[in-house]
Amino acid sequence: MNEHLTQLQHWVQAENLDVAYISNFTNINYFTGFFSDPEERVTGLFVFPDQEPLLFVPALSIEAVKKTGWPYAVAGYLDQEDPFALIADEIKKRSPQPLQWGIEKDDLAVFKFEAIMREFPQAAFPADASRFIEGLQLIKTPAEIAQMAEAGRQADRAFTAGFNALKTGITEQGVVAEIEYAMMKEGVMHMSFDTIVQAGVDAADPHGGPEQVAIKPGELVLFDLGTDNHGYMSDATRTVAFGQGVSEQAKELHKVCLEAQLAAQSAVRPGMRAAALDKIARDIIDKAGYGEYFNHRLGHGIGMSTHEYPSIMAGNQMELKPGMCFSIEPGIYVPGVAGVRIEDCVHVTETGCEPFTHTPKEFTVID
Amino acid sequence: MNEHLTQLQHWVQAENLDVAYISNFTNINYFTGFFSDPEERVTGLFVFPDQEPLLFVPALSIEAVKKTGWPYAVAGYLDQEDPFALIADEIKKRSPQPLQWGIEKDDLAVFKFEAIMREFPQAAFPADASRFIEGLQLIKTPAEIAQMAEAGRQADRAFTAGFNALKTGITEQGVVAEIEYAMMKEGVMHMSFDTIVQAGVDAADPHGGPEQVAIKPGELVLFDLGTDNHGYMSDATRTVAFGQGVSEQAKELHKVCLEAQLAAQSAVRPGMRAAALDKIARDIIDKAGYGEYFNHRLGHGIGMSTHEYPSIMAGNQMELKPGMCFSIEPGIYVPGVAGVRIEDCVHVTETGCEPFTHTPKEFTVID
Ligand SMILES: [Mn+2]
Ligand SMILES: [Mn+2]
Repeated sequence: MNEHLTQLQHWVQAENLDVAYISNFTNINYFTGFFSDPEERVTGLFVFPDQEPLLFVPALSIEAVKKTGWPYAVAGYLDQEDPFALIADEIKKRSPQPLQWGIEKDDLAVFKFEAIMREFPQAAFPADASRFIEGLQLIKTPAEIAQMAEAGRQADRAFTAGFNALKTGITEQGVVAEIEYAMMKEGVMHMSFDTIVQAGVDAADPHGGPEQVAIKPGELVLFDLGTDNHGYMSDATRTVAFGQGVSEQAKELHKVCLEAQLAAQSAVRPGMRAAALDKIARDIIDKAGYGEYFNHRLGHGIGMSTHEYPSIMAGNQMELKPGMCFSIEPGIYVPGVAGVRIEDCVHVTETGCEPFTHTPKEFTVID
Repeated sequence: MNEHLTQLQHWVQAENLDVAYISNFTNINYFTGFFSDPEERVTGLFVFPDQEPLLFVPALSIEAVKKTGWPYAVAGYLDQEDPFALIADEIKKRSPQPLQWGIEKDDLAVFKFEAIMREFPQAAFPADASRFIEGLQLIKTPAEIAQMAEAGRQADRAFTAGFNALKTGITEQGVVAEIEYAMMKEGVMHMSFDTIVQAGVDAADPHGGPEQVAIKPGELVLFDLGTDNHGYMSDATRTVAFGQGVSEQAKELHKVCLEAQLAAQSAVRPGMRAAALDKIARDIIDKAGYGEYFNHRLGHGIGMSTHEYPSIMAGNQMELKPGMCFSIEPGIYVPGVAGVRIEDCVHVTETGCEPFTHTPKEFTVID
């Protein structure tokens, strides 16, 4: 059994559960190596304290499960069958009367929850697997960190494609097209989120998307992008100048933001609190007089999702530990002037941290 | 109040509910025109029998809601606040003691369900809004059909880009890159699903994705693609020959599949049963001796999702009605030989149906 699945079974044992039902498809991938978004169909991983696990999927996915090398039982259902009746049969073979259930409360939809209660009227749901998995995913294994490092190298190449695309007349959307095209041509078929390219005052609005308006010389251009490398995500941001004529104030925003980013990144140590890391960056931006324009947390965890734990923000007293992976992304957004954000995702080491992305962060003019 | 929202409120009244909680972000867009995937944050539309509706969103989305022109109340919460405590306050202003709730059982996660039960211990959940919305979305308005027709025109241009990309040495993934690049350059930033390009025997495996292997002359190439036009989806499939030398058997598969597709498309009438339409295509493929290789339903509904109702399959006695939109997509997949699928999505009219895509379906050789 792989390390993660073993830990899940240990949790099932420790919580005195009869069965745990993992329903979230990203988490099923995390535990099994099988990825599929079943949409309206039903997929579940069932884990028992003293039996081998069972993967239950739509019948048309059984071959795909076998191809992944999944060594345990897999069962399927046809579209005209009731999946929960079949799930109940499979579970009863392994645990005749399962009373104590662990479920993912963040994921499981009420209709599935009601189906379980219909099949197992005695079932109780004392344990929330969402919280356990969240904690488990906090610390990445070396193999996971290697996957994320590869995703980071892809993101670095995506920045290069984006910087190369900056030329007179191109729009924000046009640059996004060039970036995603370059990634696909090298075989990276999924970005980890919609690529963001925002120029000039657009970048001061964190909710705008890329527009079909030409980027003007003298504007700062913010690139926030990432790739999906076999389920492991990258996420990084650079803000560069397009051509000459960037205002002194925009340069100042970049200088302050970079100082905050570098200070935080070099301050990471195991044992440090998440809130303390946020404060290091925030104090620098506050002191420069831009505190009100840094209106989000310093960072978010990253792994098989682009937003997971730890959250690097005021109030979070969680201790940083080796293997944690998160973003360090201060931003300064001055409405009507410009927006700057600089972001690397890092993994905590025994002595500090290592970034996954290496594109230079210094103020750069793309001519 | 827009037509859909009015119908939702009528349902709340007819079911004697005190409040309906719409949690699915695609459905929130359907009723409000506000689209946002809140990920781990909470967004909800609350509809009352005799009060104006309330949209509840993360605080950072309030401006975006206002920009859509949403004319009713919007409330927000900050990351450090408990959204369900605030939701409870807002609901109590409008309905002091809501007992009867409508919820989307297909969507609502257990943690939100438990939060509602914590805030409203007397709450009962007699009505499943998922089923009501599913039914409402069966019939598209003329405005929705116009959006889908535009998505169809985008898909036609995507086929052109894909056919133009077919040249010696290009891979399936390379063709996907060219298609999505062409779409983005014209401002279509989202496909409705991952573009499928499968050549030769790959197309006989409905679960394979595009690969980094050169497409060979004489292979059939299957393109299944669609775009997202302001939340309304297109979905279409064409299978063409790359260069000369396609086998007689592959040509035969195309001929039979096309005959089935055209027969079904021209047979659509209001009042016809979904199962009868499936049978028209299936009988043709059966009679030609390929029945066992047509191993999926004839079609699926489409709208703001690529898979909704009606399902065009054996056993579904639903009557087709004007305004229904669905795919007609027979396929024949002979392992080791080739796979062919031909698909248009259509909307039912008073006298038949109209397709959203118009790319020729006849056997075509791309040299
Ligand atoms: Mn980030
Ligand atoms: Mn389809």
